Parts: sequence; C-alpha cells; structure tokens
Amino acid sequence: MNKAYLSLERHFARLSSLNDAIGILCWDKEVIMPSGAAERRAENLAMLEGLRHEILTAPVVAELLEQAEPGDDVWRRANLEEMRRLHAHATALPGELVEASTQATARCEMVWRTARENGDFAAILPTLSEVLRLTREVAFATGEKLGLSPYDALLDTFDPGTRQTDIDPVFTQLAAGLPELIGTVLEKQNNLPAATPLSGPFSVPRQEALGRQLMQQLGFDVTRGRLDVSTHPFCGGATHDVRLTTRYDENDFIPAMMGVLHETGHALYDMGLPPAWLSQPVGQAGGMTLHESQSLLMEMQVCRSNAFAGWLAPKLQAAFDVPTTTAGWDAQNIHRLLTHVQPGFIRVDADEVTYPAHILVRYELEKALISGDLPLADLPSAFNERIHALLGLHVPDDGRGCLQDIHWPEGLFGYFPCYTLGALTAAQLREAACKQVPQIMPAIAKGDFTPLLGWLRENVHSRARSASMPQIVQDATGRKLDASAYLAHIQRRYVERAEDA
Amino acid sequence: MNKAYLSLERHFARLSSLNDAIGILCWDKEVIMPSGAAERRAENLAMLEGLRHEILTAPVVAELLEQAEPGDDVWRRANLEEMRRLHAHATALPGELVEASTQATARCEMVWRTARENGDFAAILPTLSEVLRLTREVAFATGEKLGLSPYDALLDTFDPGTRQTDIDPVFTQLAAGLPELIGTVLEKQNNLPAATPLSGPFSVPRQEALGRQLMQQLGFDVTRGRLDVSTHPFCGGATHDVRLTTRYDENDFIPAMMGVLHETGHALYDMGLPPAWLSQPVGQAGGMTLHESQSLLMEMQVCRSNAFAGWLAPKLQAAFDVPTTTAGWDAQNIHRLLTHVQPGFIRVDADEVTYPAHILVRYELEKALISGDLPLADLPSAFNERIHALLGLHVPDDGRGCLQDIHWPEGLFGYFPCYTLGALTAAQLREAACKQVPQIMPAIAKGDFTPLLGWLRENVHSRARSASMPQIVQDATGRKLDASAYLAHIQRRYVERAEDA
Repeated sequence: MNKAYLSLERHFARLSSLNDAIGILCWDKEVIMPSGAAERRAENLAMLEGLRHEILTAPVVAELLEQAEPGDDVWRRANLEEMRRLHAHATALPGELVEASTQATARCEMVWRTARENGDFAAILPTLSEVLRLTREVAFATGEKLGLSPYDALLDTFDPGTRQTDIDPVFTQLAAGLPELIGTVLEKQNNLPAATPLSGPFSVPRQEALGRQLMQQLGFDVTRGRLDVSTHPFCGGATHDVRLTTRYDENDFIPAMMGVLHETGHALYDMGLPPAWLSQPVGQAGGMTLHESQSLLMEMQVCRSNAFAGWLAPKLQAAFDVPTTTAGWDAQNIHRLLTHVQPGFIRVDADEVTYPAHILVRYELEKALISGDLPLADLPSAFNERIHALLGLHVPDDGRGCLQDIHWPEGLFGYFPCYTLGALTAAQLREAACKQVPQIMPAIAKGDFTPLLGWLRENVHSRARSASMPQIVQDATGRKLDASAYLAHIQRRYVERAEDA
Repeated sequence: MNKAYLSLERHFARLSSLNDAIGILCWDKEVIMPSGAAERRAENLAMLEGLRHEILTAPVVAELLEQAEPGDDVWRRANLEEMRRLHAHATALPGELVEASTQATARCEMVWRTARENGDFAAILPTLSEVLRLTREVAFATGEKLGLSPYDALLDTFDPGTRQTDIDPVFTQLAAGLPELIGTVLEKQNNLPAATPLSGPFSVPRQEALGRQLMQQLGFDVTRGRLDVSTHPFCGGATHDVRLTTRYDENDFIPAMMGVLHETGHALYDMGLPPAWLSQPVGQAGGMTLHESQSLLMEMQVCRSNAFAGWLAPKLQAAFDVPTTTAGWDAQNIHRLLTHVQPGFIRVDADEVTYPAHILVRYELEKALISGDLPLADLPSAFNERIHALLGLHVPDDGRGCLQDIHWPEGLFGYFPCYTLGALTAAQLREAACKQVPQIMPAIAKGDFTPLLGWLRENVHSRARSASMPQIVQDATGRKLDASAYLAHIQRRYVERAEDA
C-alpha cells in the first residue's frame, strides 16, 4: 500500500468516530433525552451530519482516492472499494438537492403522522409528491454517478451491491406460491387445537430480567452493550457499545421478549465484526439484508423453533414464578403461540408466513413510483388491490393501508425489499449452518447458542464488508440467494408441523 | 454589524452544537456507557475535541475577527470580545504542546490513582514534574498571546477576566481571620448539645424521589433536564438539556440530598441563560466562579438555613415515612446536622467554615509552583505546613494531603481559587438579594424559591457573558467582591447561631 491509502485510512477513521458520536446521540434522543431538548438535538444532529458530509467530500479525498494503492491485501482492496462507493454516493448530489430532500422529508413526516391517523391520503399527496419527485432526482443523479439504474442506485444506499436483477427472480418465485401456501398453512392451523393464551399481568422488572437473561444466553456481551426502553425498538449505539431497546406490555410478555431476541440478532452481528477493521468502512456490517438476516435468523428461524421452545418453557415459568403445572406454559403451547399465523393489515405485526406479502406489494409499487409508471395518486387503489390478491384482505382505510409505514414519507425508497431478502437469507444461512454443523439445533434445545454463533461469526460476522452480500451468501451456503430454503422452512414448520421446525 | 460578524455568529453556532454533542457524550460516559466502550469513547471524544479546535482555529476565523464590526449592540460587542478571547486561547499554543500536555496529563492521572492510594508522592514526582513543566509552558505561551502574566493566563481559562490582583486582597482578608474564626466556631459548637444522627436505612428510590421533589421545588424544569447516578456527581449535558447526577448512601441521605441541591444551583444557572444567545459565546454561563456561586448559594447559603430547615423537616419525614415524633427529625436538629463544623483533611468533605482553608493553601502553592519559587519536590512539606497553620491538623500521609485532588495531575492549575471565590460571591449575592427583596427568606421558609430565583435570573443568569464576573458582581451587589459578606454569614450562622441564618 502507499501513503495515499494510509492517509485515507486515517481520514475514514475520523468519520467512523463521528458515526459513533451520531449513534450515541440518536440513541439518547430515543431513550433518554428530555422532551424540551428535541429541537436543539435535531440541530446538533444536522450539524454533525453536515460535518460528516464535509469530511467525506473534502477535495483531498478525491485526490487520495485517485492516488491510493492498497496493495494485494483483500481487506485493504475491499476497504478502498467501499471508500470509493461512499464517496461516490456523497458527491453524486448537489448540496441544494440534499438540502431540499431533507426539508421535504421533514415536512412530509409531520404531515404523515396526522394523515395516517385519519387514513387521509389526499392530505399527504402534495408533500409526498414532492418527496417522490426529489427522491427520483436523487436516484437519477446517484445512478448516473455510479453507473446504475435509478432504482438500483437507491437499493445500493441500503444494501451495497444488491441489484434489482438479483431480487426480481427471487421475489417472483416467492410471489408465485405465496397465496396458496398461506391458504394451506391456515387450513392446517385451523385443524389443530387453538393455542392457550398466557394470562398476566407480567411485571416490567421481570420481563426486563428475562430479556437480559435471554440476550446473554444468545451471546450478548453486557460489557459492550445495553438494554433499554424506547417507543420504537431498535439496535443502535456505537463501536464496542451496542445498544438495543424494547417496549413492555404488562398483559403480554411475548412481543417484548421476541423483540429483544430480534435486536440481539442485530447486536451479535455488530459485536462479531473484526476488531482490527472496526474504524474502517470495510469493517462495518454488511447492508440491510445481511443485518436483517441476523435478527430474523435468531428471532424467527431459531427462537420460534420447537427446540428452543423446549428449553424456554421452564425458563419462562421461573421468570414469572408460574407453578409448573399451569395450563399453557408447556413447550408445545409456547411453540404454538410463537408460530401462530394470521393474515393482517399491519406489516410490523405480521408473522413470518404472511410478512413477505407486505414486502412484495411495496417492492412492486415503489419500482413503479420511481420509474414513473405509477402516478402517486393511484397508489392507494394499487396498494389495496395487491394486498387483496396476496392476503385476501380488503384494506379498510389508508391508515391501515399504504400510509401505515413511515418509510416513503421519510424518502426511504429501496429499503423495503431488504426485510424479505433478510428473511430468505436467514433461512438459507440456517439451512447451511445446520447441514455443516449438525449439533447446532440439538445445542439450541439445551439453550446453548455457541455452535450457531461460532458458525455465524466465521461465515458472516467476521467477513464484515470484505465481500459483497451475494458473495457472502454464496460462500456460506454454496449457492446464490433464492427462496427455496425459506419455502422449505415454512413447509416444515407450518404445513408439516415437523418436530424439528 | 457587518457580514464578517454574521459569518462569525454562524461559525460559532456550529461550535456550540459541537459542544452540546461533547456534553452529552461526556455525560453518557459517566452515567450510562458500558465499561468495554471506555477506550473507544476516549478516542471519539478526542476526535470531537480535535474538530472543535480545527473549527475554532481555521484561518478564516482570524480573517473574520479582523474584519468584524458588531455595531453598537452591547451583546454583539461582548460576543465578539468573547470570540476573540476563545480564539486567542486556542491559537496561543503550538499543536505539539497541546498534544504533549494531553499525553502527559493522561499518564499522570493514571499514576495519580495509585500514588494517592499509597500516599506515595515520590511515585508521582516524575510524571507530575512533566505536567507542571508543560503547564508552565502553556501558561507562558498563553500569557504572551493575551498580554497576561502566566498565572493570570491560567486563571483566564477557567474564569475569564479574573486576575491574581483581584484575588490576592480578598484571600488575604480571609486568611487573616480564618484560624481564629474556626476556633470560635468550634468552641461555640462544643457548648451546644450534639446533633442527633438520623438512622436509616434510606432506600435509594425514596432518596431519588426526594431529590426530584427538591429540584423542582427550587425551579428545575424537568422537561429540559434529568437526574441520574454517577460515581462523581456533576452537572453537565447540553443546551436545553441540563443533566445532574448524584450518588446514594443507604445509611445517610444527607450527602445525596445536599449534592442534588448543589447541582440544582448549577442547573438553574444554565436554565436561566438568555434563549436568544444560547448558541453564541456571549450566551454561555460565566466562568467557574459565577457557576460555583450559584451552586453554593443554593446548597450552602439557602438550603442549610434555619428558614429552609423549617420547611424541609416535615418533607423529610414524609419522604422516608418517619412518624412525626421521631427524635432528631425536627427542624432544629436537621439544621444542626446541616451546619456541623469539623476540620478535616479532605477538601470535598469540608463544611463551609473550614473549606476556604484548603483553597488558600492550594492557591498559594500553585502560584509558587507556576512561578518556579516552589520546587515540586518540596510540595508535600509546604502543603502539610500550611494545612497545620490554617486548620491545626497534622496531615498523616500525602494521600490525605497534597495528593487527594486530581486537579494538578490533570494539569488544572488556576482552578482551585474559583471554589472559594464562588463561596464568597454566593454570600455577597445573597446578602444583596435579601436586602433588595426582603421577602426572599420568608418565602424560602415556605419552600417558595421564586423570589430568590427571580432575582438571580435578573441579576446573574440572564446576563450570561455580556459582562465580566467582577462587573456582574459589582452591578448586582453595589461593590467589588470581598470576603465581608461571607465572614458576616459565618459569624451569624456559626458564632451567633442566629435564627435567620
């Protein structure tokens, strides 16, 4: 490597440090900050984002990127590539466009809160039109700079290296069978005895203690992270300081518990990144798809399995001080509660069988919005029609329809597909892991996550961004990402009701 | 005003935002951060400090300071002056000196922890010598740039505008009478019945609830601040987000309670700064002396008074669910506990009568260390001799002597006098306030702090840095700072044991 490359490493280490500062301030905003500080904090964060942009787009960076020679080391080469990608994204857009987008999304977000509540699409149409118009400008400008189609340019922001041509065949395979599969699953479920609900109340301190116990059981290092409470659960924080949040309902502990397990999947990924590269672009976690695959692998693939439910049931009884003979607290019923399927309007409440339907609809529609094929005014009817086709439901109002999610009002187009790509990746990774290390699920049945975590560390976490998401999936599982492992998993768990699912 | 001045305002608003980010990250480090993140957080903070220095010393700032015309507005003029002062401090030192100082103090701090524990001055002598050598370089370089003596240059870092010539006569007046005064106070105290200790345990949640109640009673706005726990209590945070901390002892609630009242005094100052100037240098709180005067005015002057003890006693009984007839929980005994005098070795544990002795010693010795008149090797004997002269105590080891405080190992010379200047200022401000607004203390006797807070807001808080500390004291009290109000206060409260003290 040469001096220019080393200068870039120092430059990007500074950015990494700034990212940490922003990460902690964002966490603080959601968890700790007193309400009266909101406006000022927004200014503070905008200033830090501005600094980040300035540092990333400083003229010296372009010069250094021209001159840099990383040598033969795979990691350094990948690091330089990732620097180039970040720099290209940051310099693709004129300052006025960034500014206009920020303002438009801020306005639209505000309007969205009321519009969603009132199911009033007409109210958001003008501001959302403006957001869409600017997002298309961003997509075209970024695409031109990176040599990508506009939609691929948006995808690349969230999931470096993923292209529409990767997604289309996979989602087509999935969509083809989904309505029938859901029908079969529901029929099978209806022939089984109904799951017994668990009755509370479940005190928050006990739920919290359970969450902490489970986090650590999965491998979370409490000296390098925290568990707290926020309105919208997330996993954030900074390097060596991974902070996840949940929210508690005293009548039902399952949502908080599964939320903690989900966020712990994210956290374990961040905690497993290679220490030597933590302050470089190549040392960061892969894009949204890989990140979501790690949370869903834990939450959906593993922690809703019969194997885990068997270990979990007595722990739950102990956590809430329930006599061992109480009805409903056995492993079989717990498993049934954790795998109940119910088509519904709300994406974030969906089970793993019906969830992809929400994403398939969003993906198809956002491609059409970005290309201009779908006029924004026609979005509600198009959305409702597709939901009906996939889930058999009639959307009663736009608040429970196309307005339910904040993503598009926030300008996040190209983000939705990562959720389902993550679910498919989780299934394919787990299938491969269990084939390569057969003791993974027997160990889970004893509450031992070390074989699974060891495999994930080696095949996913430790690779960070040294390879692309498709390459990491290919190397770990022996094939490109497809929907077959996910479909096989749904088949075994929800149709065959197999003991090992 | 001209364009250059307006550019400076924008430039310094950015710095203010960066200060907020640093404030929250420092708070997080002391209160929230998991242990494994310590090293990384230190890097993050060093990076942000580096950015702050870069922004403050950017070549454009020097140009703008040359060209700026603030117009006739007093605040803008004072703002430009304060910008010039900050810029002069930041550009006075070559980068290598700043770097060397940072490294030397970091090393010395580490050595200090063990040396204090072992009372081993010899162990710290080499690293402390290096810190002193570099601090003297800093003092000479800064002094040259600002046209100040080396010691005044250090003072100016913590307390803009305060000079050794202001302090010397005041401290001389104080030192002259202190040993005799302490003797008289102790004699008087010995002739009174001993205070009855209150017996616990006092649960942390109850202590915390009491702290929150008292904070709000004093005027703390909970929508713009927080109360938390940390090893070393402090008041920090950011604009519109004032965060204070305390620590709890289940056997004695008084230290935590008085700590909260002290930090609330700091917090009320920050919360009372003029909103229009919050992101400018002129809108910041005055230096250390004024800040400490606000905490000591609340904690010492007001909250250890008979008036406040009368209101407090039944609140304490309610807070800890103590039957009203329990011995010791009456106002008179509470007041006696809050005003107990006991010469001791440890500065931070000292009462308001003996506290100045510790500062007088530090002040005299640090002046001699900076001037070179006192060789560092002679510090322990000089320190012990002065403590004996003022407090009549024989220091048993350097851990309880000159090594007890972290300030000098951290390179903080010129900081100690602000504590006692703050105590004297608190007394003089309170004397003036009560003369001008006679209902202040009768209101306090009913738990009503609004007349006092109103006076402080008008005469201190709202002035921010629009005038110097000496000017603010002069305007508020009609004279320069001296020791007379403090001495009169000690006389009335501890010698005469007056009802109104």
